[in-house]
Amino acid sequence: MKISKNQPTVAFQGTHYAFSEIAARKYFGQEIETLPCRQFRDVFTAVESGKSDFGIIPIENSLTGSIYQNLDLLLESTVSIAGETSIRVEQHLITCPGISLKDIRVVYSHPQALQQCREFLSSLKNVEIIASYDTAGSVKDIRDRQMLQAAAIASRQAANDYGMEIIREEIEDIPENYTRFYIISKDALTLNNADKTSIIFSIKNLPGALFKSLSVFALRDIDLLKIESRPLRGRPWEYFFYLDFAGNIEKERCRNAIRHLEEITDFLKVLGSYKSADKH
Amino acid sequence: MKISKNQPTVAFQGTHYAFSEIAARKYFGQEIETLPCRQFRDVFTAVESGKSDFGIIPIENSLTGSIYQNLDLLLESTVSIAGETSIRVEQHLITCPGISLKDIRVVYSHPQALQQCREFLSSLKNVEIIASYDTAGSVKDIRDRQMLQAAAIASRQAANDYGMEIIREEIEDIPENYTRFYIISKDALTLNNADKTSIIFSIKNLPGALFKSLSVFALRDIDLLKIESRPLRGRPWEYFFYLDFAGNIEKERCRNAIRHLEEITDFLKVLGSYKSADKH
Repeated sequence: MKISKNQPTVAFQGTHYAFSEIAARKYFGQEIETLPCRQFRDVFTAVESGKSDFGIIPIENSLTGSIYQNLDLLLESTVSIAGETSIRVEQHLITCPGISLKDIRVVYSHPQALQQCREFLSSLKNVEIIASYDTAGSVKDIRDRQMLQAAAIASRQAANDYGMEIIREEIEDIPENYTRFYIISKDALTLNNADKTSIIFSIKNLPGALFKSLSVFALRDIDLLKIESRPLRGRPWEYFFYLDFAGNIEKERCRNAIRHLEEITDFLKVLGSYKSADKH
Repeated sequence: MKISKNQPTVAFQGTHYAFSEIAARKYFGQEIETLPCRQFRDVFTAVESGKSDFGIIPIENSLTGSIYQNLDLLLESTVSIAGETSIRVEQHLITCPGISLKDIRVVYSHPQALQQCREFLSSLKNVEIIASYDTAGSVKDIRDRQMLQAAAIASRQAANDYGMEIIREEIEDIPENYTRFYIISKDALTLNNADKTSIIFSIKNLPGALFKSLSVFALRDIDLLKIESRPLRGRPWEYFFYLDFAGNIEKERCRNAIRHLEEITDFLKVLGSYKSADKH
């Protein structure tokens, strides 16, 4: 993606060398400025306030599923999706230099990384697993506090850049481990090459309403790429649907589908049209 | 539900007075035997092995969404869904007697409960939030270890039964806070009054396949109650769909729909037909 000003600032959750930062550099190039944020919510706020030109948020992992907190934040926030990228995620077990696996009593990492390595972790005996707010940040913590009975799960970059040692490589359950990220921006930027659109809607409480809402795409030969549901807070057992379809919202066929969808929904929000990432 | 033998044993995740145990007694009556398990996986194992007649697992909360780990376990396991119940969940902040809010430096609870009380928790300053494996177990821990700067989030029953004090009532974000549970059994038990069926399927990689798979229900006026997607591990960006529909699998209309669905899916599993819980 070409950016008009010198280099954009991109907000991400975590500390330097987190997977989100690696993905941001893959998408925008190495020279961008990055802004580490403590929480996903802070990434949205940095973009909404203009403090950062873009944000990058993980939206889905191929082993563990959607990052539901970010789906919920996309509903609440006013940001748009400006792009998408995905990276292969290799998780490594990282310690201070000279430590061996049998010395480890505690493993720290982000809950997502812990989930991706569930099988490896369940093979460890007498080891406490502790969720932390970040993969790379766990490596930094262990180094800064010289915790010799602790390990972190994080990227090779984090191990190298903090001068730490990888004692077990690629400990994710299945090597086909990819994470997909959205690039978010304050204003909607629909580029000509956009080929994918993401929307959120809720349907009227009528028989067959979900089927009818999908038919507006099928009737126009628009391919559905993904559907996901999330609770409608305050209305138990009713849902928001998150739908990705193939197409650019600027094209007439997609505009007609959305207009048709509005007839059968009581809430509809277009998150953005953007160029889809390569399959992997 | 009538059980033929004296009283069934029901496995649940957590320690006594956990919400799952409260829900089990609502469904089966007060006199059942309950079997506390450390992990959700252990509940499935207790049922599969015959160690427990039934299990109870939380499947969805009206504020935070599906309990995805249990969706994944339903796919892997051979158990069937035999019933459904739901309870209103009131979360309370619980401490040792005589403690006030300003003394609290750490709050323990199950990640689900922490999520349900996100707004209250984010209003606390200089307080560490720690995920534990159980709501009621956190109350017990704080009491056993006489932790005077700690609070737990759990049910009123847990506070009463462990002789602890509620210092803030109903701290969930929205009072409309319900959790839905499945009753699981080793063998499929489809009762005559079953009016809801849950299935899991994956679709062939063809244009419009998701729409076609939902049409098998719409064409027969079978109402869809819920759709959810989960990743197909090892095949990035392909999905299993979890679908609930209104109807009993023993009835011809539903059997025909399932037979039709088999033509367009490459995997299909019927989890069970059961009597749906009241709306709340």
